[in-house]
Amino acid sequence: MKAISLTEMTWQEFARGLPHTIIALCVGSLEQHGPHLPLSVDSLIPYNLCLKLGERERLFVAPPFFYGYRSSPFTGGGQSFPGTTSLSGQTLTALLRDVLQDFIRQGCYRFLIMNGHFENTPFISEAAHLVTAVNTKVKVVIVNWWDLLSPATLDRLFPEGFPGWEVEHASLVETSLVMHFRPDLVHAELIPEQKGEKHKPRPLVFPEPAGLVPESGILYTATGASPEKGAAIAGEILTQLQKIVADELA
Amino acid sequence: MKAISLTEMTWQEFARGLPHTIIALCVGSLEQHGPHLPLSVDSLIPYNLCLKLGERERLFVAPPFFYGYRSSPFTGGGQSFPGTTSLSGQTLTALLRDVLQDFIRQGCYRFLIMNGHFENTPFISEAAHLVTAVNTKVKVVIVNWWDLLSPATLDRLFPEGFPGWEVEHASLVETSLVMHFRPDLVHAELIPEQKGEKHKPRPLVFPEPAGLVPESGILYTATGASPEKGAAIAGEILTQLQKIVADELA
Amino acid sequence: MKAISLTEMTWQEFARGLPHTIIALCVGSLEQHGPHLPLSVDSLIPYNLCLKLGERERLFVAPPFFYGYRSSPFTGGGQSFPGTTSLSGQTLTALLRDVLQDFIRQGCYRFLIMNGHFENTPFISEAAHLVTAVNTKVKVVIVNWWDLLSPATLDRLFPEGFPGWEVEHASLVETSLVMHFRPDLVHAELIPEQKGEKHKPRPLVFPEPAGLVPESGILYTATGASPEKGAAIAGEILTQLQKIVADELA
Amino acid sequence: MKAISLTEMTWQEFARGLPHTIIALCVGSLEQHGPHLPLSVDSLIPYNLCLKLGERERLFVAPPFFYGYRSSPFTGGGQSFPGTTSLSGQTLTALLRDVLQDFIRQGCYRFLIMNGHFENTPFISEAAHLVTAVNTKVKVVIVNWWDLLSPATLDRLFPEGFPGWEVEHASLVETSLVMHFRPDLVHAELIPEQKGEKHKPRPLVFPEPAGLVPESGILYTATGASPEKGAAIAGEILTQLQKIVADELA
Amino acid sequence: MKAISLTEMTWQEFARGLPHTIIALCVGSLEQHGPHLPLSVDSLIPYNLCLKLGERERLFVAPPFFYGYRSSPFTGGGQSFPGTTSLSGQTLTALLRDVLQDFIRQGCYRFLIMNGHFENTPFISEAAHLVTAVNTKVKVVIVNWWDLLSPATLDRLFPEGFPGWEVEHASLVETSLVMHFRPDLVHAELIPEQKGEKHKPRPLVFPEPAGLVPESGILYTATGASPEKGAAIAGEILTQLQKIVADELA
Amino acid sequence: MKAISLTEMTWQEFARGLPHTIIALCVGSLEQHGPHLPLSVDSLIPYNLCLKLGERERLFVAPPFFYGYRSSPFTGGGQSFPGTTSLSGQTLTALLRDVLQDFIRQGCYRFLIMNGHFENTPFISEAAHLVTAVNTKVKVVIVNWWDLLSPATLDRLFPEGFPGWEVEHASLVETSLVMHFRPDLVHAELIPEQKGEKHKPRPLVFPEPAGLVPESGILYTATGASPEKGAAIAGEILTQLQKIVADELA
Repeated sequence: MKAISLTEMTWQEFARGLPHTIIALCVGSLEQHGPHLPLSVDSLIPYNLCLKLGERERLFVAPPFFYGYRSSPFTGGGQSFPGTTSLSGQTLTALLRDVLQDFIRQGCYRFLIMNGHFENTPFISEAAHLVTAVNTKVKVVIVNWWDLLSPATLDRLFPEGFPGWEVEHASLVETSLVMHFRPDLVHAELIPEQKGEKHKPRPLVFPEPAGLVPESGILYTATGASPEKGAAIAGEILTQLQKIVADELA
Repeated sequence: MKAISLTEMTWQEFARGLPHTIIALCVGSLEQHGPHLPLSVDSLIPYNLCLKLGERERLFVAPPFFYGYRSSPFTGGGQSFPGTTSLSGQTLTALLRDVLQDFIRQGCYRFLIMNGHFENTPFISEAAHLVTAVNTKVKVVIVNWWDLLSPATLDRLFPEGFPGWEVEHASLVETSLVMHFRPDLVHAELIPEQKGEKHKPRPLVFPEPAGLVPESGILYTATGASPEKGAAIAGEILTQLQKIVADELA
Repeated sequence: MKAISLTEMTWQEFARGLPHTIIALCVGSLEQHGPHLPLSVDSLIPYNLCLKLGERERLFVAPPFFYGYRSSPFTGGGQSFPGTTSLSGQTLTALLRDVLQDFIRQGCYRFLIMNGHFENTPFISEAAHLVTAVNTKVKVVIVNWWDLLSPATLDRLFPEGFPGWEVEHASLVETSLVMHFRPDLVHAELIPEQKGEKHKPRPLVFPEPAGLVPESGILYTATGASPEKGAAIAGEILTQLQKIVADELA
Repeated sequence: MKAISLTEMTWQEFARGLPHTIIALCVGSLEQHGPHLPLSVDSLIPYNLCLKLGERERLFVAPPFFYGYRSSPFTGGGQSFPGTTSLSGQTLTALLRDVLQDFIRQGCYRFLIMNGHFENTPFISEAAHLVTAVNTKVKVVIVNWWDLLSPATLDRLFPEGFPGWEVEHASLVETSLVMHFRPDLVHAELIPEQKGEKHKPRPLVFPEPAGLVPESGILYTATGASPEKGAAIAGEILTQLQKIVADELA
Repeated sequence: MKAISLTEMTWQEFARGLPHTIIALCVGSLEQHGPHLPLSVDSLIPYNLCLKLGERERLFVAPPFFYGYRSSPFTGGGQSFPGTTSLSGQTLTALLRDVLQDFIRQGCYRFLIMNGHFENTPFISEAAHLVTAVNTKVKVVIVNWWDLLSPATLDRLFPEGFPGWEVEHASLVETSLVMHFRPDLVHAELIPEQKGEKHKPRPLVFPEPAGLVPESGILYTATGASPEKGAAIAGEILTQLQKIVADELA
Repeated sequence: MKAISLTEMTWQEFARGLPHTIIALCVGSLEQHGPHLPLSVDSLIPYNLCLKLGERERLFVAPPFFYGYRSSPFTGGGQSFPGTTSLSGQTLTALLRDVLQDFIRQGCYRFLIMNGHFENTPFISEAAHLVTAVNTKVKVVIVNWWDLLSPATLDRLFPEGFPGWEVEHASLVETSLVMHFRPDLVHAELIPEQKGEKHKPRPLVFPEPAGLVPESGILYTATGASPEKGAAIAGEILTQLQKIVADELA
């Protein structure tokens, strides 16, 4: 069996793979995901996708980053739900920059950062910029997994019309993926009958006003989620990831 | 005549308005905007919108922030065009936090931050979070002006279908607005016949690959821009801004 | 079944436990641990100890911190082995401070930080200082698990004399604990016949000189490790931890 | 007509001038300047001087920095007047360093920083030091415009004896220069009959004691200011600036 | 004998004096001071002045800060002389802020900061601002010792006209003071026959141009220095310091 | 007589020694040391050891760092005694990094850092790491002086068994060394009859609990200290230091 995850690997296994490997970094958040999903959804999905990808590509998966940037009420439920525990942007950037730099010191130059939490993107990008600006050998590709689903797939999943990724929080796609990867962690019986609003742009207000997010923490709806849908979604994402690896990190 | 802009106001005029005023902060970028628009489009539009708003509402407009966060090739042309001159995220956040804090010290508690550069949003939000987290009197509303146009307006402006705000860089809407506010700064004769691709999500790659952006720097197309369209767009935005002021900052 | 780990818990389970719970934070490192143990030993041991403790006490276990401070050649093998991937002290402190602060914001005031990597201690302490200096409600207890074994136990484990915790890296105690908690991750057949030197103080030299650490990465010896010893060690540590919880965090 | 100001220039105009241009950065403050002058005097004067210089030399003028370091009661009126809105030293340095660095990335190596606010000088110098210490191609010249007037001119302007630059705040020289550059922004009718003390060194006391600054905010006197004097002063400064450009930045 | 210096005091002596004492902090630099004076002149003078002041006032003298901000060629000889070893502005501010804060934690609220190095002033001020902005009980007075000499004294010391404090580096006043306080550290026989230029404002150029400073490192002249002059100068400064203590820190 | 201390040296003496010298940096703390020793013990001992070493080796002793990291109740008495005045870890690291970097700029590449305060070690190491990671010419050796005493010496000094260095605070060894180097600063008559506990590991608790440290501030006992013992201890340390210089810094 191939060693894929750095947490389970000895230093000698790592050393043997080092010259020709890509390092995958998975960045999530500790954030409410409705009454039916665990707080770690945003790292769980990227980490499982990368482990699967590691079965197909030369790729080592680094230990996941469980904590991410503060949740926005428009895309993740905001900071007011108990359990949502977040980093400042500066700390998230410093954390990723340090880890990237220390892998680079060891001779790793190709990185795939798989992000599972919308709000992280700019702070991950800042870290990627900082390390590539000073070392031309390094290449970093940042992927938000939801960007890899095709419009055709979204049409199939949402016959009534796709509500927008911003409200797909703890909703059909995430629920299906967790049902696929970790069915033991889904409390399907607690999924409420509810349908939130579709996404529309709104001004950002600080401090966060009350009442922006449905009480359950699900932004749109998880009704209709299934492990089969999760498997299909994961399959399409993995195919796209293989293409990205071939195009950008070969 | 009412004093609106802090750059043109004496301290006594400011002091008289202080107890009942909103402070508007305009954040832009120094960034390529095609062969026909100046580098300062992203601060010019918010600043002119706020000056107009100041004619209708009790509002003081602070000096504009001309420098913003690094440009992404998917939403602004990237950092490779000469003239695009940017701040790190940490510096942009520190700059806004310092200015907000020093207005708060003087007894200003209500802020409207008008943003003209997509990539700034998270770093502005971080500053807004930092100052509101330690002072419950303070309220900060952040508006990206393009979020205020209705789908109906976009349908009217783009009969062939709206390409997405990400590619509306140096394109029809921005060009029309500059034609409306500062016609002297538009080189209409240099607008190329071109039409870029519509927005589709792509992985972020660092360092920035060549060839992602059309040579002109216009992401979609500026053909069809006009001062009349600019006036109509500005009018709709101002109506929406008045509503936001009434709802959130009264 | 009781939910103990925040990664597996919904926000509602967390909310119900919040008023009377202690938060356990486990801090490790990604660091070589000989040819027979995985890179994550230093987070694996604290995390499993805390999960066990959570079966006995009201305690929620936060997601582990897999990355720690740079490894010293005198206590962990140094930074020269492939796979050892570390943070700066400033980043580690910022990371822990951010997480502590955001739990405090939610009303959590009692923290048990279980450390598995010697070099982390001062940077964890700095974070604990920073959050307790500004909020008198907060109490943070930091435990290095190895400090909880009694001299009597060490005498039993090391009939030839205890060599000192500094060289107990990837050696008998750590190996036994991983054999107990995660036997699937131990390559017992790769444990070399070797015995390193006992600890003696030496000047710290930068850059790290070559040759300070045995080639295997084991500082003393792993010979004689067994799951039974691991169970006994874990048992004594858990008893001590319960006492600390009762004395300091009740 | 030559494009001089980056805010009004397209990226192609900038690109054409890039190989042989100097970048001028104007740093001011948002600070009380008496009942008769606007809050932006300290950026207005440097910016207008640089635009004039740009008519004579190959020089591009970057967008002004409107916010500067905290005002001292001995040289600018202190922080207690409404409207005076300032940055910390660390932020001002970071802001200038970022902007310098990003111009350097584009191949600009010669910079003229024109300062209009006494208290900024050390924080500007720190930024200049940071970028020149790591790149030997770069040269930065920092000019406080008031240092360019000759003793002979000062004798002419102040027949009763020059009171010292520290108290020349909102006083004769600044008022005359604004009368010259932007007469529309001067409320000459509000200039009080007053004459402050000449400068003498005093200990710096924190927090700022009350009563150090005349109520008007004028440190010495603005009586006698005229646009003609402003034109003469600007003329002498420009001559000196041309000499500095020739000597240091050719 | 009264204990005055914290370096020589036990904690109990400190504790007894704490309720009614002023803490004096002496900030200098490690900087060339000509062929005849030691590198520590800028801390030596403030420290000895404060010890003397401590014989007259209730005042504890904290250990000196030997390292200061970078030397400017116009006021201290610049960074190019061997031995001149300096801090960044940010570090100097952090150092003083930490020390002030930790004295404040112990109940010390009145501070006299005696500065011996011109370039330090803004970075000391920033620290003083930071601690007084968050605690209204605290008062910090910053004194540059040279500001305490009267014009009459300067006339007496410089019959040919005072050249300006900026060039009084390693020159008559500093040399006389070291002759007074530490005659054993003065190599009077190495004082060159030289007379530098009087101070005139010049643009700051980075990197520092060669040739701005006389080869000896003395900016004006040390000829004529004597211990008697040093005693008279110290006497006048001490009288002024007593007045400042009475006026500002009683 | 040889110039050894930079505080007493001219720039020309420094310049002559520069090509072949080691720079010694002494880092201490301002911290309670019982009723009989001054607050500066932790810098006094390293500084005197280095001056002695400088009589035997080519070595320049830089001005001491009097302020160190926060005192822990288990190794230094904690922060609760009046007089203990400390830096944050980040500031201590920044301070040392700045000083090391500025000596490196002058061509000094070999450093001996002599530490006198246990809690400083990791923050000194971080600074040493930072400067050596970017310049392969630089070598930094960090010595805690107490690590240089042999077990045989400790047996001789402590016939009843060595209690552990952690509790050797203000106790026999430190007292003897100060009696040797600065007998004028020891109040031998105030040494209490007391014997503290031997060191045993304990969890670190924040905020610091009361009652962990004996009221005197002496962690074990100072009874039996003598200048003769101090001379013998200093002698052994110096011999070991010469060996370290020969082995690591020649």
